[in-house]
Amino acid sequence: MNLTHLDQNDRPNMVDVGDKEVTKRVAVASGIIKMSQEAYDLIASNQAKKGPVLQTAVIAAIQGAKQTSTLIPMCHPLMLTSIKCDIEHLEDLPGFKLIVTAKLSGKTGVEMEALTGVSIGLLTIYDMIKAVDKSMIITDIMLDKKSGGKSGEYVRG
Amino acid sequence: MNLTHLDQNDRPNMVDVGDKEVTKRVAVASGIIKMSQEAYDLIASNQAKKGPVLQTAVIAAIQGAKQTSTLIPMCHPLMLTSIKCDIEHLEDLPGFKLIVTAKLSGKTGVEMEALTGVSIGLLTIYDMIKAVDKSMIITDIMLDKKSGGKSGEYVRG
Amino acid sequence: MNLTHLDQNDRPNMVDVGDKEVTKRVAVASGIIKMSQEAYDLIASNQAKKGPVLQTAVIAAIQGAKQTSTLIPMCHPLMLTSIKCDIEHLEDLPGFKLIVTAKLSGKTGVEMEALTGVSIGLLTIYDMIKAVDKSMIITDIMLDKKSGGKSGEYVRG
Amino acid sequence: MNLTHLDQNDRPNMVDVGDKEVTKRVAVASGIIKMSQEAYDLIASNQAKKGPVLQTAVIAAIQGAKQTSTLIPMCHPLMLTSIKCDIEHLEDLPGFKLIVTAKLSGKTGVEMEALTGVSIGLLTIYDMIKAVDKSMIITDIMLDKKSGGKSGEYVRG
Amino acid sequence: MNLTHLDQNDRPNMVDVGDKEVTKRVAVASGIIKMSQEAYDLIASNQAKKGPVLQTAVIAAIQGAKQTSTLIPMCHPLMLTSIKCDIEHLEDLPGFKLIVTAKLSGKTGVEMEALTGVSIGLLTIYDMIKAVDKSMIITDIMLDKKSGGKSGEYVRG
Amino acid sequence: MNLTHLDQNDRPNMVDVGDKEVTKRVAVASGIIKMSQEAYDLIASNQAKKGPVLQTAVIAAIQGAKQTSTLIPMCHPLMLTSIKCDIEHLEDLPGFKLIVTAKLSGKTGVEMEALTGVSIGLLTIYDMIKAVDKSMIITDIMLDKKSGGKSGEYVRG
Repeated sequence: MNLTHLDQNDRPNMVDVGDKEVTKRVAVASGIIKMSQEAYDLIASNQAKKGPVLQTAVIAAIQGAKQTSTLIPMCHPLMLTSIKCDIEHLEDLPGFKLIVTAKLSGKTGVEMEALTGVSIGLLTIYDMIKAVDKSMIITDIMLDKKSGGKSGEYVRG
Repeated sequence: MNLTHLDQNDRPNMVDVGDKEVTKRVAVASGIIKMSQEAYDLIASNQAKKGPVLQTAVIAAIQGAKQTSTLIPMCHPLMLTSIKCDIEHLEDLPGFKLIVTAKLSGKTGVEMEALTGVSIGLLTIYDMIKAVDKSMIITDIMLDKKSGGKSGEYVRG
Repeated sequence: MNLTHLDQNDRPNMVDVGDKEVTKRVAVASGIIKMSQEAYDLIASNQAKKGPVLQTAVIAAIQGAKQTSTLIPMCHPLMLTSIKCDIEHLEDLPGFKLIVTAKLSGKTGVEMEALTGVSIGLLTIYDMIKAVDKSMIITDIMLDKKSGGKSGEYVRG
Repeated sequence: MNLTHLDQNDRPNMVDVGDKEVTKRVAVASGIIKMSQEAYDLIASNQAKKGPVLQTAVIAAIQGAKQTSTLIPMCHPLMLTSIKCDIEHLEDLPGFKLIVTAKLSGKTGVEMEALTGVSIGLLTIYDMIKAVDKSMIITDIMLDKKSGGKSGEYVRG
Repeated sequence: MNLTHLDQNDRPNMVDVGDKEVTKRVAVASGIIKMSQEAYDLIASNQAKKGPVLQTAVIAAIQGAKQTSTLIPMCHPLMLTSIKCDIEHLEDLPGFKLIVTAKLSGKTGVEMEALTGVSIGLLTIYDMIKAVDKSMIITDIMLDKKSGGKSGEYVRG
Repeated sequence: MNLTHLDQNDRPNMVDVGDKEVTKRVAVASGIIKMSQEAYDLIASNQAKKGPVLQTAVIAAIQGAKQTSTLIPMCHPLMLTSIKCDIEHLEDLPGFKLIVTAKLSGKTGVEMEALTGVSIGLLTIYDMIKAVDKSMIITDIMLDKKSGGKSGEYVRG
């Protein structure tokens, strides 16, 4: 099996998707940020009022997803038709889970867009609360499911 | 304790660092990508030859770190003086650990630059090997240490 | 009536246009910059010779329109097929009116692209003449007309 | 009097600020968006709950201000030390006024950064409410005051 | 004959390609960097081991090609379906030739994307070896061939 | 002699300039575009009137120079204090020579900014006249001189 991003001279390339079919593609990715109780309470109670930490993270996730082909060298430029974010409050951890759903009618999948959105959103939470807790950990960034395209459906087992 | 990125009306702002001193600042962050044995072997053996997956990740990490203030809404634009990447082969996991060190002589810290570099670098590894393994997990993105500035030295315990 | 950019949890999202039809879409927007007689004369007479202030503004408007989805958080990335700029000399104001026409064959409208082009173009005029007049005012940025898409034709009354 | 952005051949250039002093510079700019009562009420009541339209606009204004030197051709890249946004509810208009304050210790002023932030923030409000009201007008974008640098203090009369 | 990027008032515009057909388009461009024997040997022998100068150049070429519509004012945003790079070792010059192939299914050609990729890739080689040789010359950047679109096939004579 | 952009593991890095002195740095670079008589006449006569091809190229060169650290992977972000462009009409070639002068008070040189500006400016000329002549060649992109920094003055022999 070969890595599709490396050509026969082991030079990176942006793989040719010109002959792929245009299909509806959806990818859902998620990730978690773990933090101290103090940091969690500040964000959660603040969100009860106006929630700007989490809303800033959502906006950053959406804008980050749109920058995927600029950031990840071998990614194709895509015209995303939808980006949607959800946040779960993980009181027991404590921390937050960010879920990003990206959609496209196109020739290549949107896994990287969903994963990049998750990463940028979680980094934004880190940035906005780091004065309180520098030891936060971003973890469990993964693809939850994808559909569309030749490789078909993937659902994390 | 207040979140420094929220003003008195709970609106996000980019905090004023105009009166902070210019000091030498260093931040080291790291993160891990876990993968299947097959994916690991393909990257590792390829690196034994020319290693373009990991080198592409290093380049993406450096370029991503430079985009931090574009990606993270409340981050200040900074003139990084150095970005350095190291990669550890974690044969037993299996997977790879990416460590990014960012430096600056400036008025605010470079934690976010190091963390953003780590995130983009690991996403790049994911992208280049995802045809082989979609279940990879990016995890343990954290600040290892920082120095410089009023808050002084931080070393993860 | 609901705001389409806010989901049921009042979190911003990038609305799903995946099921919209691809139609030809055109949007025309305009805006005005008012200035002192001295500033106006410098630009107008200079344009009589080589006109670089207005031409720089036109180029900035075109490049700015292409950055719309990067700048406006909930905007979709689009593949504009045409951007055209016109400038009217408003001798009596005195000032200039910038009109930007954006076109697309796609699933969502190009109003924001036209409006963003107008804004960036007028800011560029401000920048290039601000040494002479800091009191200039950018005003009357509005959508003049649009066509295409489900909501059909709009012409300012 | 000459335009400083045009050299002796009437070609645009980025003026040399190398010999200017580093001083603390502050600029305050503002602008207004006028809208229908229905659009105003939707934003205002929504903000009473969670306010994401205005908070999204604030975030876009901050990120837009950081892109000034990319958007405005003759602007110098700057390392802003602070960006702060305020929004006034203009119930009688009805509409909203966005005020952006930008700060820098540097060799050139930050008027364009404040003005660009205002423009992008107001465009974002337009984008998020345009499904309800396409006839909104962005107006009165102006410099309110500036300080620092050789040209000294400016306060709109 | 008229220049298509200038409208009837000699103002630049982004030409309307809305009515053009979607066809498969391919462009191949190339360019050369000439250098001292010492610089050449360092790159070539290093490439024999791990080759990061040339691989960094390839990655930069790919990422640069994706930025074409941001960099070249009148270029349309495009969704490239493939970018591929080749490097020839010109031992006798000495120097290197970089060849970039860009592909698209779209309404306008990809010559500028291929040429921009070549330019950015060669500049990256310059950057990475300039400590050894400042007198390098980048030369012979040209379109080798293109196909697709109304103007049909072009092959350099 | 080692390449400064490769660390001991042959991984690219952004070299540490933190301990370098802040000095005034100037770099002058140039390049040439050769074209058919027809293409040359169209640009030159047009410039006699309003010159937008060359002025668009100048603006693109300035904006491109500001993007250098985004485009060239190992380049440091810099705060250029000046960018100036000159164009020579080479009637006999025929073609045009673009000269870009970049200035900075900083810790690292601005050669790459001047060279990138030249490249983007010449590509812009190519783009705007390519409907008339696809066989144009961009050539002789080189550093003409630099001053400032530890390595001192360089003047092409």
